Amino acid sequence: MALDPSRTVAELKELAELTGDENGAQRVAWTETWERGRAWLREKVAPTGAEYEIDEACNQWFTLPGKSERALLIGGHMDSVPNGGWLDGCLNVLAGVEVVRRIAEEGTPPLTVRLVDWADEEGARFGRSLFGSSAAAGSMSDQDELRDRRDADGIALPEALVEHGVDLDRALEARRQLDGAAAYLELHIEQGPVLESLELPLGVVLGTFGVERHLITWRGQAAHAGSTPMDKRRDALAGAAKLALEIRPIAAEVGDGAVCTSGAVVCKPGIVTSVVETAEQLLDQRHLDAGKLARLLELAQEASQRFAREEDVELRWQRIWSIDPIPFDDRLIELADEAVREVSGSSHRLPSGPLHDAAEVARAGIPTVMLFVQSLRGLSHTKLEDTKEEHLELAVRALDRLATKTLGGFA
Amino acid sequence: MALDPSRTVAELKELAELTGDENGAQRVAWTETWERGRAWLREKVAPTGAEYEIDEACNQWFTLPGKSERALLIGGHMDSVPNGGWLDGCLNVLAGVEVVRRIAEEGTPPLTVRLVDWADEEGARFGRSLFGSSAAAGSMSDQDELRDRRDADGIALPEALVEHGVDLDRALEARRQLDGAAAYLELHIEQGPVLESLELPLGVVLGTFGVERHLITWRGQAAHAGSTPMDKRRDALAGAAKLALEIRPIAAEVGDGAVCTSGAVVCKPGIVTSVVETAEQLLDQRHLDAGKLARLLELAQEASQRFAREEDVELRWQRIWSIDPIPFDDRLIELADEAVREVSGSSHRLPSGPLHDAAEVARAGIPTVMLFVQSLRGLSHTKLEDTKEEHLELAVRALDRLATKTLGGFA
Repeated sequence: MALDPSRTVAELKELAELTGDENGAQRVAWTETWERGRAWLREKVAPTGAEYEIDEACNQWFTLPGKSERALLIGGHMDSVPNGGWLDGCLNVLAGVEVVRRIAEEGTPPLTVRLVDWADEEGARFGRSLFGSSAAAGSMSDQDELRDRRDADGIALPEALVEHGVDLDRALEARRQLDGAAAYLELHIEQGPVLESLELPLGVVLGTFGVERHLITWRGQAAHAGSTPMDKRRDALAGAAKLALEIRPIAAEVGDGAVCTSGAVVCKPGIVTSVVETAEQLLDQRHLDAGKLARLLELAQEASQRFAREEDVELRWQRIWSIDPIPFDDRLIELADEAVREVSGSSHRLPSGPLHDAAEVARAGIPTVMLFVQSLRGLSHTKLEDTKEEHLELAVRALDRLATKTLGGFA
Repeated sequence: MALDPSRTVAELKELAELTGDENGAQRVAWTETWERGRAWLREKVAPTGAEYEIDEACNQWFTLPGKSERALLIGGHMDSVPNGGWLDGCLNVLAGVEVVRRIAEEGTPPLTVRLVDWADEEGARFGRSLFGSSAAAGSMSDQDELRDRRDADGIALPEALVEHGVDLDRALEARRQLDGAAAYLELHIEQGPVLESLELPLGVVLGTFGVERHLITWRGQAAHAGSTPMDKRRDALAGAAKLALEIRPIAAEVGDGAVCTSGAVVCKPGIVTSVVETAEQLLDQRHLDAGKLARLLELAQEASQRFAREEDVELRWQRIWSIDPIPFDDRLIELADEAVREVSGSSHRLPSGPLHDAAEVARAGIPTVMLFVQSLRGLSHTKLEDTKEEHLELAVRALDRLATKTLGGFA
C-alpha cells in the first residue's frame, strides 16, 4: 500500500464534518467534541496495528515498534480554537497517520515510530497553551498557578481535567514519553503570508522566535484641546505614535526576519476635547537570534527614552512576557530542505512566529524540525483558514520523505 | 460707595461654602443646589434696587434702568459642573454684581444696565450646554432633540425643566431679552495656560474658536505579530500615528493660534499578538479664522490620504461636529484692551478655545467682548481650579473699567 495523500485530505473533511459546524472547527480541548475527534482518530489508526497509549498529560501515543527502541516522533494536536479552521493542528496528526500507515505496511522500521496527538495545544478554554507537550518536555513549571485557572463558566482547570482522566499533580509524569526520542517532526500550516507571497507550497522552519513583550506607559498632561497652545502640551500620544513608527526602522536595522508590532495604544482620558494624558502601548518584538532580539529591545528602549525627552512625558516599561528563541536541529533542517525540494522543486527556510508543540520538544533537547505548508491569505484561527488541496497533498509527501530520511539519518 | 473687589472674593468664598462640598462646587443646573445659589444671588443683588425678572429659558435678569432703554449687558452663569471649581461661571456673575452696585450708587446710568445669570451654561446634567443663552440668542434649533434627552437617572429634560418652572416649548420667547442690547461683557477665568505662561493677570478675548471635529477610521489587515513579515503588513495604527504627529507641523503652518488635537486612537483587535486592523482616531481642529480653520482641515485630509497610500490602508473621515468661529466686536476689544492696561499695566489678546455664553450673544449680532483672568496651571472643571486673589480683584476692576468705557462709547 503506497502513501495516499488524497486520503489525508478526505479524512480532514470527514473530521470537519464530525466535529465542526457552520462557524468552523469546535474541538476545544477538554470538551466532548474534542473527545469525539480523538476517539475518531483512534479508529483511524487502529488498522495499522500501532500500540495505543494515553499518558498522564492526556497526550495520545500510537507506537510502531522498530528495530531500535530509539524513536522517531511525529506530532500534532487534535484540539482547535472555538470557530477554528479545518487544518490547524489536525493536518499534522492526519498526515502523520498516513505516514504511519505507509511505514507499518513496509514492515519493521529501523527506529521505533511514534505518532503523538498532544493535548490542549491551543489553550482555548483555560488560556494555557502547549499543555500536553510542556508536560512531556518537563517545562511545565506553573502547576500551582494552573490549579487556580478557571474557564469562562467558572470551572476550575483541575476539575475539568479530572473529567478527562487527568490528575494535574501527575501530569509531569508524561516526561518519560520522551525517553529515547531520536527526533521529532511536525508539519503545520504556516498561519502567515510568507510562502503564499513567494508562491511556494512548502517551507522549512528554522525554529520559533524568541519574544519580548512589553507594556509601555507614556504619561503627559491632560489639557483642553481648545485652550492649550501647541507648544504648551505634554501629549502622551505623541510618544506612542513616534515609537509605533520607529519600530519599523529598528526591525530593518536588526534584520534577519526581525518583527516588531505595536498592537494597541489605549489613550486616557480618550476624549475629543483633551490632549492625551496617558497612552498605554503594547509592544511585541520577535527574533530567532537571542542577541538580535536583545538588540531589538535595546533600540526600542533607547528610542522611547529619546521620544520621552522630546515630548516632556514620563515613560515606563513593564515586561509582560518573554521567551528565548528555540532553534531547530541543523541536521534535520538540511533533511527537511531536501525533502521539500524533492516533492515541490524548491524550498524556503523561515522562522515560526507562533509557538508550536515542536518548540517544547526542542527545548527538551530532542532534535526537532517543522515543515510549513502555505496558508491562503495567511489566515488562521478562523473558519476562513484554508490551503489548496494540491498543497496539502504535497505536504503529506514531504513529511513522508522527511520521515524516511530521518529514519535513515538518525538510526 | 466705591467699587470693592475684595468683597467679590469674599462672596465667592461664601458661595463655595453654601453650594460646594469637599469635592468642589455642586451647582449643577436644574438641581436644588443650583437653585440655592440662585436664590442667594437674588439676595445679594436686592440692595442695589435692580429690577428682577426670570425669562422663559430660566435666565435671571437684574436691571438698572438708564437714561436710554438701550442696554449694556453683563453676564455669567451660576451653574457649575459636578465637583467643579470655585470660579467658573460665578466669578462673572459676582464681579457683575459689584459693578452693578457701583453703578447703582452713582445714579442713573446713560444706558440701562442689565446683569444676567444664564441658565445651564455647562450642560452637565443633560449634555446640552449654553441652554439659556442659546434660547435668548434665538439659536436654539434643537428643541425636538432636547425633548428626548434624559439624565443619568432616566429623567427627561422637559420634566426636569418643568420642576424649575420652564416650558421647553416656550424657551425661545427669551429672545425678547436681547431687544435693544447695545453691548455684552463677560469676564471668565481663562481655563488654559496662556496668561500664566506670560505672567499676565488679564487678557482680552478676540472671539471663540471655530471647531472642526472628526472621527477618522483607518482600516488595514489584522495579521499575526509573529508570522507576518514587516513588509507584508497593512498596519492601521501606522496611519493614525503619522497623522497624530503631522497635525503639529500643520498647526504651525497655518499659525495664528491654530490648535489640532488627536484625543484618542482606538485600536482593534487591540491585542499584543496582532497587527492593528482598525484604528479609530479623534481629531479636533480649532481656529479663530474661518478660512484658516478650513485650511487646517484640508491639510489634515491631504496628509491622511498620503499616509493611507503609503500604508496601503483604507481611510474614512466622518464629521462629528463643527462650528464657525465667532469673532468679538473690534471696538469693544479696543476698550477692553485699554481697561486691562489701565488696571494691570499690560494686556494680551487671545482666542477662547472653550465656548461661552458670550459666543451665543455675539452670534445674535450683539457687540460682545470677554475678559480672561489667569487660571493657575490652566486647570478648570475640577476643585483644583484656582486664581490668585490679587488677580481676581484686578479682574473685577478691569470689568468695571470696561463697563464705564462701554457706557461712554456705546451710549
